[in-house]
Amino acid sequence: MQILHQIQRDFDKYLIGHPFQDDPVALYDPVNYVLNIGGKRLRPAVLLMSCYFFEGSYKAAMPAAFAIEVFHNFTLVHDDIMDHAPLRRGKSTVHEKYGLNKAILSGDVMMVQAFDRILDLENQSAIPAIMQVFTKLAIEVCEGQQMDMDFETMNTVEISAYLKMIELKTSVLVAGAMQIGAMLGGASAGDAQAMYQFGRNLGIAFQLQDDLLDTYGDPEKFGKRLGGDISQNKKTFLYLKAIELSNKQERQLLEKLFETNPEDETAKINQVIQIFDKLEIKKHTEAIKEKYREEAFHQLAKIEVEGSRKKVLEGFANALMSREV
Amino acid sequence: MQILHQIQRDFDKYLIGHPFQDDPVALYDPVNYVLNIGGKRLRPAVLLMSCYFFEGSYKAAMPAAFAIEVFHNFTLVHDDIMDHAPLRRGKSTVHEKYGLNKAILSGDVMMVQAFDRILDLENQSAIPAIMQVFTKLAIEVCEGQQMDMDFETMNTVEISAYLKMIELKTSVLVAGAMQIGAMLGGASAGDAQAMYQFGRNLGIAFQLQDDLLDTYGDPEKFGKRLGGDISQNKKTFLYLKAIELSNKQERQLLEKLFETNPEDETAKINQVIQIFDKLEIKKHTEAIKEKYREEAFHQLAKIEVEGSRKKVLEGFANALMSREV
Repeated sequence: MQILHQIQRDFDKYLIGHPFQDDPVALYDPVNYVLNIGGKRLRPAVLLMSCYFFEGSYKAAMPAAFAIEVFHNFTLVHDDIMDHAPLRRGKSTVHEKYGLNKAILSGDVMMVQAFDRILDLENQSAIPAIMQVFTKLAIEVCEGQQMDMDFETMNTVEISAYLKMIELKTSVLVAGAMQIGAMLGGASAGDAQAMYQFGRNLGIAFQLQDDLLDTYGDPEKFGKRLGGDISQNKKTFLYLKAIELSNKQERQLLEKLFETNPEDETAKINQVIQIFDKLEIKKHTEAIKEKYREEAFHQLAKIEVEGSRKKVLEGFANALMSREV
Repeated sequence: MQILHQIQRDFDKYLIGHPFQDDPVALYDPVNYVLNIGGKRLRPAVLLMSCYFFEGSYKAAMPAAFAIEVFHNFTLVHDDIMDHAPLRRGKSTVHEKYGLNKAILSGDVMMVQAFDRILDLENQSAIPAIMQVFTKLAIEVCEGQQMDMDFETMNTVEISAYLKMIELKTSVLVAGAMQIGAMLGGASAGDAQAMYQFGRNLGIAFQLQDDLLDTYGDPEKFGKRLGGDISQNKKTFLYLKAIELSNKQERQLLEKLFETNPEDETAKINQVIQIFDKLEIKKHTEAIKEKYREEAFHQLAKIEVEGSRKKVLEGFANALMSREV
């Protein structure tokens, strides 16, 4: 995985070398703040790895990787407003620190700046096709966020609708990053499409893994307190599957628990996990996660590239799934 | 001006023929709402007139005109949130009708949809250059909005800073529409640039006219109550020029009046107008407005096109300035 570290270092350098202007200060301070409070730069790494995979010069793809990272951070700024989130990456969210208006407007300018970065690509003739992928994923991310908000006030959510929501809200960004990286790496249209499907399936598997870890993760490795989704009454795959498999009594108890916000959450979390365990929710979630992971690798297998590069991408995908990057 | 009416009719038809999808409903309902509560469609008309001016087929420019209108409406949705505005075009603003979160998110998706519309242009090779103009103006509009918000809490604003703010917040959108229309009409780079400058200067003149009409307009024609800017303590060109020209006593009175929000505004408005009149603010504003208008027509004069088409564009610009379209 030496190449991954090389790519991550190069991207960090590029980011530092391309700061946003600082006028008006009130507009760009929040932008620079949110871009510099950490974050793993996973999505740009995905894009650049995908470019490398097709033997393209990943350095030429830097503007697109930058665009993806800026766009991702824009979504965080606006999502945090909508979720009333006080913290992001352990620091104050933009609206907490700068107020609502600046959070809205600096988010807006980040979105435009993201599109603007695409135009920095040297290969100008590639821009329309790449912009198509980018606007499509950006529209879908907004649609996914709306579905997520809609679900909050709905009593029941179909599992298929939940999977569609995480596909739009989370995985199309990874998928689009894979596809754009492939296009810039010189992949055929078919291979770029396969990379999109690889990323899409991997992204859904990744989100299901996220749902799992929040309840069943190793407390030492997880970083956050376990059971957060349960205490926030989030209708994750685990909850929805439990509703599907539960008998009437369990279902009523689950629904009742997911309407409460007790001060001491431990009892509530334990009660919910007890039902989850009885219904083997962990096993069911792992099974569907595995289905998406397998489909991802099936898509990857279709692409003919030099073996050692494929090994690198497989290793990267596995590292993503096991949260080692 | 038959061509203008033709263009406006064709644009309305295009708009009706290209509705946004309706899923998720909660995301697109606000979009369709704001696009259908009126608005004069001035900016798309500017773009299409500019295309026609260069003897281009303005119908091929429809996607770009649509993009400009959707982008403009996005700015209205987010600006109305920031300004706490309850009404727009006599109807509830989006955040009033649908709530803050939906106003943020449907604004976001409108901005992406605007960029996406550009990609519908048949002439794909023109896209990178047009996208450059579009992202630049979109960034500047955000910057102008931030400057405007900054001014609200500042005691003094330089007139040059005010002019820069209205240039960014208002006129670059008109300028960019002129430039994009020209590019799609087959103008040379120099002519497209002259059209940008034509639009930029015209847009500033238009905004100064707006400032003037708010205080000195004909009550029967103006549509809104006169003196709104004064009652809202808006630091318009009129106010800033008065501050510049006033003696110490007048200045103190003006500043004091612009810190009050009396229930009966008439006395306050009259007092301010009395100072404005004494300092001949109307004359000064008209003079600078005229300067920008002249510069606009000077830019237009540089462009060599067939005389009758130039007459049409001049007529359109004059109609814009006299608010007849």
